[in-house]
Amino acid sequence: MDIQTKVVELARRRGIFWPSYEIYGGVGGLYDIGPVGVKIKNKIVDLWRKFFIKDHSDFVVEIETPIITPYKVLEASGHVENFTDPIVECTKCHNVYRADHLVEEFAKINAEGLSPSELDKIIREKGIKCPKCGGELGEVRLFNLLFETNIGPYSGNKGFLRPETAQGMFTSFKRVFEAYRQKLPLGIAQVGRVGRNEISPRQGLIRMREFTIMEIEFFFDPESNIEPPFERLGNLTVNILRGEDKVKGIGRPTSYKLDEVVKEKIVINPWMAYWIGVATKFVNALGISNIYFEEKLPHERAHYSKQTFDQIAVIGDEKVEISGHAYRSDYDLSRHMKYSGQDLTVFKKYDSPKVVKKKSVIIKKDLLVKEGKDFLKDFVQFVQNKSSDEIAEMVKRGEKFNGKDISLYVEITEREEKVSGEHIIPHVVEPSFGVERCLYLTVLNAYKEKEGRIVLALPKYLAPYDVAVFPLLEKEELIKKAKEVYDMLKEKYDVIYDDSGSIGKRYARVDEIGVPYSVTVDPMTLSDSTVTIRDRDTWGQIRVKIEDLMVVLDKLFKGEDFNKLGKVINNNE
Amino acid sequence: MDIQTKVVELARRRGIFWPSYEIYGGVGGLYDIGPVGVKIKNKIVDLWRKFFIKDHSDFVVEIETPIITPYKVLEASGHVENFTDPIVECTKCHNVYRADHLVEEFAKINAEGLSPSELDKIIREKGIKCPKCGGELGEVRLFNLLFETNIGPYSGNKGFLRPETAQGMFTSFKRVFEAYRQKLPLGIAQVGRVGRNEISPRQGLIRMREFTIMEIEFFFDPESNIEPPFERLGNLTVNILRGEDKVKGIGRPTSYKLDEVVKEKIVINPWMAYWIGVATKFVNALGISNIYFEEKLPHERAHYSKQTFDQIAVIGDEKVEISGHAYRSDYDLSRHMKYSGQDLTVFKKYDSPKVVKKKSVIIKKDLLVKEGKDFLKDFVQFVQNKSSDEIAEMVKRGEKFNGKDISLYVEITEREEKVSGEHIIPHVVEPSFGVERCLYLTVLNAYKEKEGRIVLALPKYLAPYDVAVFPLLEKEELIKKAKEVYDMLKEKYDVIYDDSGSIGKRYARVDEIGVPYSVTVDPMTLSDSTVTIRDRDTWGQIRVKIEDLMVVLDKLFKGEDFNKLGKVINNNE
Repeated sequence: MDIQTKVVELARRRGIFWPSYEIYGGVGGLYDIGPVGVKIKNKIVDLWRKFFIKDHSDFVVEIETPIITPYKVLEASGHVENFTDPIVECTKCHNVYRADHLVEEFAKINAEGLSPSELDKIIREKGIKCPKCGGELGEVRLFNLLFETNIGPYSGNKGFLRPETAQGMFTSFKRVFEAYRQKLPLGIAQVGRVGRNEISPRQGLIRMREFTIMEIEFFFDPESNIEPPFERLGNLTVNILRGEDKVKGIGRPTSYKLDEVVKEKIVINPWMAYWIGVATKFVNALGISNIYFEEKLPHERAHYSKQTFDQIAVIGDEKVEISGHAYRSDYDLSRHMKYSGQDLTVFKKYDSPKVVKKKSVIIKKDLLVKEGKDFLKDFVQFVQNKSSDEIAEMVKRGEKFNGKDISLYVEITEREEKVSGEHIIPHVVEPSFGVERCLYLTVLNAYKEKEGRIVLALPKYLAPYDVAVFPLLEKEELIKKAKEVYDMLKEKYDVIYDDSGSIGKRYARVDEIGVPYSVTVDPMTLSDSTVTIRDRDTWGQIRVKIEDLMVVLDKLFKGEDFNKLGKVINNNE
Repeated sequence: MDIQTKVVELARRRGIFWPSYEIYGGVGGLYDIGPVGVKIKNKIVDLWRKFFIKDHSDFVVEIETPIITPYKVLEASGHVENFTDPIVECTKCHNVYRADHLVEEFAKINAEGLSPSELDKIIREKGIKCPKCGGELGEVRLFNLLFETNIGPYSGNKGFLRPETAQGMFTSFKRVFEAYRQKLPLGIAQVGRVGRNEISPRQGLIRMREFTIMEIEFFFDPESNIEPPFERLGNLTVNILRGEDKVKGIGRPTSYKLDEVVKEKIVINPWMAYWIGVATKFVNALGISNIYFEEKLPHERAHYSKQTFDQIAVIGDEKVEISGHAYRSDYDLSRHMKYSGQDLTVFKKYDSPKVVKKKSVIIKKDLLVKEGKDFLKDFVQFVQNKSSDEIAEMVKRGEKFNGKDISLYVEITEREEKVSGEHIIPHVVEPSFGVERCLYLTVLNAYKEKEGRIVLALPKYLAPYDVAVFPLLEKEELIKKAKEVYDMLKEKYDVIYDDSGSIGKRYARVDEIGVPYSVTVDPMTLSDSTVTIRDRDTWGQIRVKIEDLMVVLDKLFKGEDFNKLGKVINNNE
């Protein structure tokens, strides 16, 4: 069994995740997160909130917007037109396939971003047939991945499930901007569900039809001299596989210092580089250390992006995209301005008012009249759609109108005007994480085997429970004491209590879900008020007084040395 | 302006909530939760998790299941058939209305639960016309409130957005039961989004097309002698308006002690009474003290419920349902067993094996053969679909087959068998809260006016920020010091910093979003390292040393007397 199969089996057995609606045969791409999974997942979301929102509470806020989205919004965003995958249907058995995946599988080429006609050509040339029945494949066409629905009782009032939370931040940008700081930069974060109607989802939590996104739309003034707070990240090195290297056939990323990434414009916007730095630290905190950022080539990018990096987590032989970083520029706000007719600009006040020179044009009507009525009329028509600057330019160049010098008939004056600021459309960079992918990769990365048994070596702060409490034997006085210890610990910690089965089985059970410490009440406890603490990773045990238990656990969670905090005991479980 | 209008205005201005997609004119029933609203909402959800899950971690777990639900699941649950509202369309202007609401408005009667034909009759009798254009109304018909969509690339693969999270718990019940305790009772909780395609949602956060539910499906054995842990609730009194009182025209609830509610079977199931007790404590913790439970009459209940109570919050003149409590019995699991063909029963082990008498039937073939081949064949066919008990009964009653005593051809023997348990379908009670309603009612209840200014007197643990930090004036040395204080406090507290505008305006701003305490750095701070703390509700101020600030705030959040924790100062802001 490969590790992924083992993790999926463990996840099902121990309540981490499993396919939804199993009793009805399941639905591709839909997964339940079980009791243990929800606890890990919620801790991952909290950790993300810490890194991305709380540590940036001076300019990032969180909002929540609906999943149901009216047609117009996703038309404006370009998703109605562009959020598509190429599909092809077998003319015989009518199975539907992702055309690019078929081409990649059977023609062994990278088909990302190829057009339907290009894919079609390859299918014909290579003679690719239906993998299921061998039948002839139909024409490649685009399938829109938006889940469609109808809003309200009137038919024809189309809506969709959002494919990203981002549009909620764009459509409410002005409201948040006004209610909050009225200053740029402003990050608007959201954690919420999205739907993508994948053709044939298969890879477990990696490609789902419904999942949870945590993302920030980060609005800033590209002309501003406000620098990202790189000092919060310390000296950080990031691994990047650049687009220009990919084109050369290089497949391995290169290490760069973060300031080098900015200076050399490897990432074209400093704020995007900053969030790439934060993302590096966050993914490391999930316990995943082997990561890099892959720049997408122009035809691999989404329609709204000027530059995109995928953050890739490498676990064993697996490479999985754990986050995406897109420079959406002013694409979305501009489109929503156009489609809604609303002003989504922000007034940017200059530090001090600027003096601008403005030109005015005076038409010498008396001279024009002398040239005849028609000439007058034509001349006025000629100048009226031109700006004062344009006319001044024409005069400067000595241009003529109907053979006469324009300068004869106009007078250019110049005056100074004070301007206090200007209206700008903010630019946006977007760091975006899939929560279930984070959960899956965290669990996959934590999966260890020790002497033929499974240990989920999660970082302690991501463990579903902090501590387990067991009576050694199912005896009344031990159970009573163990429940006292449980009640004491649960004031501060997330504790699981279990008294059924052998102690060895119970240790194995909590090892499998990653509980860092187990506290056991045994017959000795009744005489000297001591308990044992067992370490998940080493299986070592120490014995401590119940009255010291809280302090000892506190120290353990702070990372102090296990064997120095109590009497080390041998144990043959 | 009434208080609801004032709250909606405040919510929009201060980033608590506002209609979604405003720049496109909005969509009825969809709301954004803003930066301040998300913070309050997340604290409400955490509080619910504490009361309902954490305080019951011995038998309640949380899971997460998809919003997208296949057709079959909601067919089994009865929603495809029953999740409807009566609508009527104007034949002239084609506006669509809730028929029951029209009847209630124009005929002044309670129309809840009336059938389309009953509503139709009233509309004709009372001559109710289209309220908008005066046109003739069409026939009343049922409109299904499920948002419909299609899953995957094959058309006809219908799915819906779930209207409740409950079906996720029913379809995954067996998996959770096996991965977790393998014991009843077992509560499965979920917090997640649902969609209900309301005809004409109007009441802000009260009736939304998409909202967040937090609910528990609580599975138990109705025959078990495991009692709910009423001792965890203390001596609790609940207000109940009983169905039998409603029928008598009584509109006011009566106070009962919780044990009386159980003993007198006012609530027919003790577990439902228990969760009603927990719900009382939870809603009180939101700051809302005036609540009661209204029993729904049979025709007012959902199709799956044997008894239902709505928890009603009374705020001023407003009565709003804040939670629902339904006794779903074994309805859902039984239906899913039928529709999926899967066994969703739970094996209930007896405390000690029971001895059951089992009957066996021996057919006397030799005697039957003598009656001829056809008689033998017919007789075998006659008995083969009957249980041993049925045949024994027939023999006892002296019944005949083709004119002959059945007893002639069979021998009934009886033997004793030890049975260790039986398969049962658990029963379910469901406490269910709407999160946005909780948010709205919490804010509405906290809304106060003081000297013409707004104060949001939220319980401290629900406030969006714990503390605000201000420099008195926009001077560099004060800003520097204030940021030091901010950095110190944010290690422990959720802190907001603000240095723009007059100090009076800044106090007003944080009063409006309910921040309990403001810490101000003023010129005196620079000489003696003291700051002022201002109380949101009294506007009183004390002066404390910066080094004592953490300890003082700690005591304030524990409820100690404000004026005893520092030097009380007069202040004319």
